[in-house]
Amino acid sequence: MSDLSESERTRHRRLREQGRTDREALFEVLRAGFVCHLGVIVDGHPMVVPTVYGFDTGHVYVHGSVASRSLTPASTVCVTITHVDGLVLARSVFEHGVNYRSAMIYGVPRALEGAEKLDALRALTEHAAPGQWEYARQPNRKELAATTILAISLEEASVKVRQGPPDDADDPHDVWAGVLPLAHSWQPPVTDPLATRPVPDHVRNRAGTPF
Amino acid sequence: MSDLSESERTRHRRLREQGRTDREALFEVLRAGFVCHLGVIVDGHPMVVPTVYGFDTGHVYVHGSVASRSLTPASTVCVTITHVDGLVLARSVFEHGVNYRSAMIYGVPRALEGAEKLDALRALTEHAAPGQWEYARQPNRKELAATTILAISLEEASVKVRQGPPDDADDPHDVWAGVLPLAHSWQPPVTDPLATRPVPDHVRNRAGTPF
Repeated sequence: MSDLSESERTRHRRLREQGRTDREALFEVLRAGFVCHLGVIVDGHPMVVPTVYGFDTGHVYVHGSVASRSLTPASTVCVTITHVDGLVLARSVFEHGVNYRSAMIYGVPRALEGAEKLDALRALTEHAAPGQWEYARQPNRKELAATTILAISLEEASVKVRQGPPDDADDPHDVWAGVLPLAHSWQPPVTDPLATRPVPDHVRNRAGTPF
Repeated sequence: MSDLSESERTRHRRLREQGRTDREALFEVLRAGFVCHLGVIVDGHPMVVPTVYGFDTGHVYVHGSVASRSLTPASTVCVTITHVDGLVLARSVFEHGVNYRSAMIYGVPRALEGAEKLDALRALTEHAAPGQWEYARQPNRKELAATTILAISLEEASVKVRQGPPDDADDPHDVWAGVLPLAHSWQPPVTDPLATRPVPDHVRNRAGTPF
């Protein structure tokens, strides 16, 4: 496992003890979700857009309409992925916080074309909706042309993780303290009233599993 | 209910049909979560930081260490709140998507001091952890000084909501289609091994409720 690169941006200035520098930690965060927050600069101002992502060993991929203002950056973007695992209820308000896992990835995005674009779209689809690339109708030429896929290198990334009980056991205020965990799970599929086929196994089997 | 203001930034250029312009929609999104993604420009690049928020009728509040680089902006920031409700599994890959509710708020943040700062910190604490402001130890002078609270006006905001089945019932590819819902719920509290008091009702009663 190689270390995540440490740039001026990703060096952990704050909460250093929460930083994790191994690449496996990054992939754990990437695997655990499918919606990221993409930060771009539009007209001189930051814009943060939630969007679906996929990834492989070298890149994270985001997609959207070719007309979208957030998907035409020629400069650095920030992709942040956050999983909220629970509330940390400490003895003092000051020590209250969140148990979470998050990754921040910085890079200049590259718009993909041709086979690369199709591969990335498949990776993205299979990450969010495993089994659907083969089951659903794959994009035709027109649909592909209407879709932008950006690749952002995973070279410059940082991961932060906070887990466990509150840190203020030495506080004189003698009250209960602990964590209120938050669970995220897939529910039974809801069939489109206009659909005529039964739920396929690859969808049905996901219900009840953690997100 | 007044309309959300429509600025150059918040006018819905894309997916106009998903835009909701009433203020109640904004408050619904604000009430439904407690972690936002704060977008700021640091050294010329966008930086997207997950952080806890609170709000009242006029402002959203975010907080953090006074040393944090993301909490010292003198220019516009973007606060995005996103709730992921499910995966939209369409007949075509192209129509796959996410059922979600999200809000984007743009504003120049103002760092609060004095009574305003304390009020905002209470609003933030009570939003994320109802009941804890009175139960836990409230911040002392030193802790308050170490905390930055930023207020961002809710004047310039947009809300987008996508719910319901896929939109491609007319697609000739005859497969199952529908939604795989995602549920978020509070779990039973996990007591700090070093705590000596029983779980208070305001914490216990939250378990099992949706997030």
